[in-house]
Amino acid sequence: MENNKIKHTALNEKAGIPQPEIFSPSVVKNIQKYRKVQPSSDELVTGILSGNITALSRAITLVESTNPDHLVKANEVINACLPHANKSVRIGITGVPGVGKSTFIEAFGKHLTGLGKKVAVLAVDPSSTISHGSILGDKTRMEELVKDKNAYIRPSASGDTLGGVARKTRETITLCEACGFDTIIIETVGVGQSETAVHSMVDFFLLLKIAGAGDELQGIKRGIMEMADAIVINKADGDNIRKAKLAKTEFNRALHLFPAKRSGWIPTTATCSAITQDGIPDVWETIVQFVELTKGNDYFNVKRSEQNEYWMLETINEQLKLSFYNNSDIQKLLDSNKKAVQNGEISPFAAAQILLEKYFK
Amino acid sequence: MENNKIKHTALNEKAGIPQPEIFSPSVVKNIQKYRKVQPSSDELVTGILSGNITALSRAITLVESTNPDHLVKANEVINACLPHANKSVRIGITGVPGVGKSTFIEAFGKHLTGLGKKVAVLAVDPSSTISHGSILGDKTRMEELVKDKNAYIRPSASGDTLGGVARKTRETITLCEACGFDTIIIETVGVGQSETAVHSMVDFFLLLKIAGAGDELQGIKRGIMEMADAIVINKADGDNIRKAKLAKTEFNRALHLFPAKRSGWIPTTATCSAITQDGIPDVWETIVQFVELTKGNDYFNVKRSEQNEYWMLETINEQLKLSFYNNSDIQKLLDSNKKAVQNGEISPFAAAQILLEKYFK
Repeated sequence: MENNKIKHTALNEKAGIPQPEIFSPSVVKNIQKYRKVQPSSDELVTGILSGNITALSRAITLVESTNPDHLVKANEVINACLPHANKSVRIGITGVPGVGKSTFIEAFGKHLTGLGKKVAVLAVDPSSTISHGSILGDKTRMEELVKDKNAYIRPSASGDTLGGVARKTRETITLCEACGFDTIIIETVGVGQSETAVHSMVDFFLLLKIAGAGDELQGIKRGIMEMADAIVINKADGDNIRKAKLAKTEFNRALHLFPAKRSGWIPTTATCSAITQDGIPDVWETIVQFVELTKGNDYFNVKRSEQNEYWMLETINEQLKLSFYNNSDIQKLLDSNKKAVQNGEISPFAAAQILLEKYFK
Repeated sequence: MENNKIKHTALNEKAGIPQPEIFSPSVVKNIQKYRKVQPSSDELVTGILSGNITALSRAITLVESTNPDHLVKANEVINACLPHANKSVRIGITGVPGVGKSTFIEAFGKHLTGLGKKVAVLAVDPSSTISHGSILGDKTRMEELVKDKNAYIRPSASGDTLGGVARKTRETITLCEACGFDTIIIETVGVGQSETAVHSMVDFFLLLKIAGAGDELQGIKRGIMEMADAIVINKADGDNIRKAKLAKTEFNRALHLFPAKRSGWIPTTATCSAITQDGIPDVWETIVQFVELTKGNDYFNVKRSEQNEYWMLETINEQLKLSFYNNSDIQKLLDSNKKAVQNGEISPFAAAQILLEKYFK
């Protein structure tokens, strides 16, 4: 054996094998490099205003961060972008899973970039925080659009509360607009509270449906149909065309039972096929007409400034509730009072009075 | 002249006319008598539980009072009545002015007392605080019902906020139920937020309509149709019958486009005439079926305990907002921030942050 050739006592100290450094030098270099290029808020704003997608993505990541330091920086970026924002058309698109939202948005987005538009696609899906839902998460579902230079697709922001998700989405809209995107599409899943949130941040609200029995309607939350500026029956191709046209007539009849909209716009119904492209250009034409009408009667601007105010008040109300319900005294009392109220042992108003007195003392 | 006959100097003092007392002794007596018979909360409860209408009316007046002393006493009465309440069917009835709510309720109420029911008719109309609206105020519109021993009609509670009105109505329901009324009808005007409030305190929600062009629908607030458990086309008499039947078909079609209800109940449509009584018994039959179904699948009780919890949380949220928006520091800052937000000078979320920091410091 080789070590027999070397003579030394057990007291000799071996040179030993050099231990690896605790931090890999290459990782350290990478982190240092990354830190160096972490741009300032001024640099981000300059980048965004010149249409730089990398700067846009970084700013959105900043907005989505929960780190309090990032919040300050994010607010700086947002406030600097605000004067350059507000110049797009914001379109909300909703529909239950299975109506083909992704293929519709792909076909619709391609049509828009073909017209020279710059299209940003965002998503609001608070449920994804629990279910890690796939809304826009699987970007490959928009294979064509994702490769388009004039399109920017961003998966859904996540957050603990709908308010948090809404804030991030609203600020992302501002960033995208400052970056030169003139058409913002916001996708949502059509089954929860998120439609009301999306409806409160867009100019035009489109409800996507498919023809068939009443069953597929069950998933749509109440009131969504009344929010729609247009109902579009998707998958109107092949054997489906006749059924889709019948559904269009049916929805049209139903829409006329709803009260007139403040915008002066009469909601429309249409059929389309994301596969054959039939009807896709007409959807855009409808939106153009809507924008013309509402810019003419000033509803467009009035609604936007109302939306701004709405989000300010919503944020305040949400924070007031969080402060109350996260209060440790309240948490101790809430459950027992809730149970007593549910069982009719104490009136709801008397229970509320007890809790409020505790909170304000 | 007669006074020439009486001889006296100008220095004589006349006896004078005795001055009236500052307080009329009869009024003082009345007030003392009234004070003496002002019953204790125990006496009120005993009266209510024995079906005494005077005690019921006095307790409702107490609940409606804004005097803080009365609030304490009202809470005592409510809490003592709670174990005896909760045993009625609560029916919300809405419809725009002109659909004939009063004549419908009169005919419907008479039908119910004819069946041996004890019927209480209440109203929720927050607008009456401003317009002094006539909802149920003009009791003579229910000439027959008001004379019926088994009916109790109470005009709408008033208040500064919908929350206040809702509280009073909810507690009035409790008192009426404890007093033995087994059918509670709550009327509302169909044009404001009050429908959501009423929907959250009843078991069955009935939307009253009349046949005709789409115009009369304009006044109905969005979402009300989706809340309805039944749509009843009133005034289906004479030349109107055919039109009413057509309207029924139309609404029936529209209702089927809405999502299924958690109750498992499929909303119905019907026609009726408060004048000829046609269809009135069927409305009650529908409600009986609804109660059977929802007591069978336990939705009835689940909804009631959810409603109790809802009103506790609503009261808390309303009070939290009132405390914020009535804060003098906030009032100084709110308008300027609102304007900056509306004009897009500051993001809604940044403005909210400024205000919240001020409030919590």
